[in-house]
Amino acid sequence: MRVAVLGAGAVGRSVAALAGEFGHEVVAVADSSGAALDDGGIDVEAVLAAKDETGTVGDADPADALEADYDALVEATPTTLGDAQPGFGHVERALERDRHAVLANKGPVAERYDELRALEADSAGEVRFEATVGGAIPAIATIEDREPEQVPAVRGVLNGTANFTLTRMAAEGLGYDHVLAEAQDLGVAEADPTFDVEGTDAALKCVILANLLAGGGFSLEDAEVEGISGIPGNALELAAEDGRTIRLIGEASRDGVRVGPRLVPENGTLAVSGTMNIVQIETRHGGRMNLSGRGAGGPETATAVLADLRRLSR
Amino acid sequence: MRVAVLGAGAVGRSVAALAGEFGHEVVAVADSSGAALDDGGIDVEAVLAAKDETGTVGDADPADALEADYDALVEATPTTLGDAQPGFGHVERALERDRHAVLANKGPVAERYDELRALEADSAGEVRFEATVGGAIPAIATIEDREPEQVPAVRGVLNGTANFTLTRMAAEGLGYDHVLAEAQDLGVAEADPTFDVEGTDAALKCVILANLLAGGGFSLEDAEVEGISGIPGNALELAAEDGRTIRLIGEASRDGVRVGPRLVPENGTLAVSGTMNIVQIETRHGGRMNLSGRGAGGPETATAVLADLRRLSR
Repeated sequence: MRVAVLGAGAVGRSVAALAGEFGHEVVAVADSSGAALDDGGIDVEAVLAAKDETGTVGDADPADALEADYDALVEATPTTLGDAQPGFGHVERALERDRHAVLANKGPVAERYDELRALEADSAGEVRFEATVGGAIPAIATIEDREPEQVPAVRGVLNGTANFTLTRMAAEGLGYDHVLAEAQDLGVAEADPTFDVEGTDAALKCVILANLLAGGGFSLEDAEVEGISGIPGNALELAAEDGRTIRLIGEASRDGVRVGPRLVPENGTLAVSGTMNIVQIETRHGGRMNLSGRGAGGPETATAVLADLRRLSR
Repeated sequence: MRVAVLGAGAVGRSVAALAGEFGHEVVAVADSSGAALDDGGIDVEAVLAAKDETGTVGDADPADALEADYDALVEATPTTLGDAQPGFGHVERALERDRHAVLANKGPVAERYDELRALEADSAGEVRFEATVGGAIPAIATIEDREPEQVPAVRGVLNGTANFTLTRMAAEGLGYDHVLAEAQDLGVAEADPTFDVEGTDAALKCVILANLLAGGGFSLEDAEVEGISGIPGNALELAAEDGRTIRLIGEASRDGVRVGPRLVPENGTLAVSGTMNIVQIETRHGGRMNLSGRGAGGPETATAVLADLRRLSR
């Protein structure tokens, strides 16, 4: 496929860098300040090196990337809430042009799902968004293949930063603030970790799952969200005495979305370690499926985008 | 889709019974001695009740089911080795007629993969076989979506009977013969459990995975197979003293197929309990994915067949 990549952060860069190996051609890459365009296929390595040197991928107008001759637009700009712009507008333009849109950006799928599907219905292009939930984990494709109507509920550990923090607190008996600082030093947590530790990121992913199950209707404001910053250190000790531990669990069903700290069995399926994610899919006739893997990271999340491209190219 | 179901064992029955709920129409069901046919859609409940009463699904010639007006043939007759007949012939006929073939029968995919793909290449129909590996677990679809060339190796626990036996031996400190007799009483193990406990079933699944990764070339005779019947009871005790346990692990890569008892961490990902299965997929850029779920059972395995039908109908 001919691919345009919007966003040159960790995921966008990895998609561009891996596209060739997966049989695709990159005809445009854009960041917020510039773009590189070539209908004959851009030299991805050179473009990413330019980004490292100059801060942008190229001299062209980023708006021109939207008009390039691509089969699929990869939307990998940062997630924004509310109107989910500019990501939503990018996807809208691709669909208007009857091209596919593959999102790594959670905003449009969590905040404006119904509008997204309406645009898709009027387009020859399709919308896919495997990369928005669980990084490398094939959660969306599995729910689609098993029919969303057959899935009463999905739950899981969907934020690596929060999970790393809880894992370290339990293993080392350290307090929240101490572990969070350590996670920031390691690059696992952002300088401003609110989005992750207060549950917003996990909630967005659960809203996306709820939209998939229910065929739309949910946005972040429908989610009941509690983060991990209020967990006292001794709560983990008390849990451990009882063979249990605490995880930030997100739950999605047709009835709504809830995210919060929950007690889970210490060696149980949901107690994944460190930055791992897990998605538990309940099915009416096939029992419970557990899908775990790397929930974040540029190349890992890029493989989910590339899986979407593969499905679109069939 | 219009579906013909060959084989009225646990899986075939469940596919027929669930097809309507998943939006399909069953136009034929056949077992080894009879068939029920109706181009307008058969009354599945009545046909399965007839099977319970009379031993067969209907009075028609089973061969006529192959010639029915279906979009997809579901091959759910018992797995046979070597020439994999009669399953292979059924799939061959569907493809000759430019219809899809969805297999729950492992024989043709493990023993005659290259021929199967050659027939598919000459047909407008496609071959799918999610149900042959890991019951409800989406192993095949995930490897396909992530590109087989991107997967260096797959390993896992792929036989519920063997896993149930090992789990009980470890938990209760009982010997192999005792636990196997118990498993037979519970219906978890067959009267002749050789196929399961000697590793043949797990090996067939790994051969299928190796064929998917390598694009063919493998059959059961290429597999190195060791079962669990030779494991002394105290081996599990010794393993437990070291925080480990024993699982029958199958491994598939382009280099070959191996199945045998292996030491694994007691609370580790591969140490699934009872009849659960797990498939671990190594990927070049996305890390390791773990997919676990119910590895057997009529409705569970039927959901994998129905997922294949869903993919074919897109």
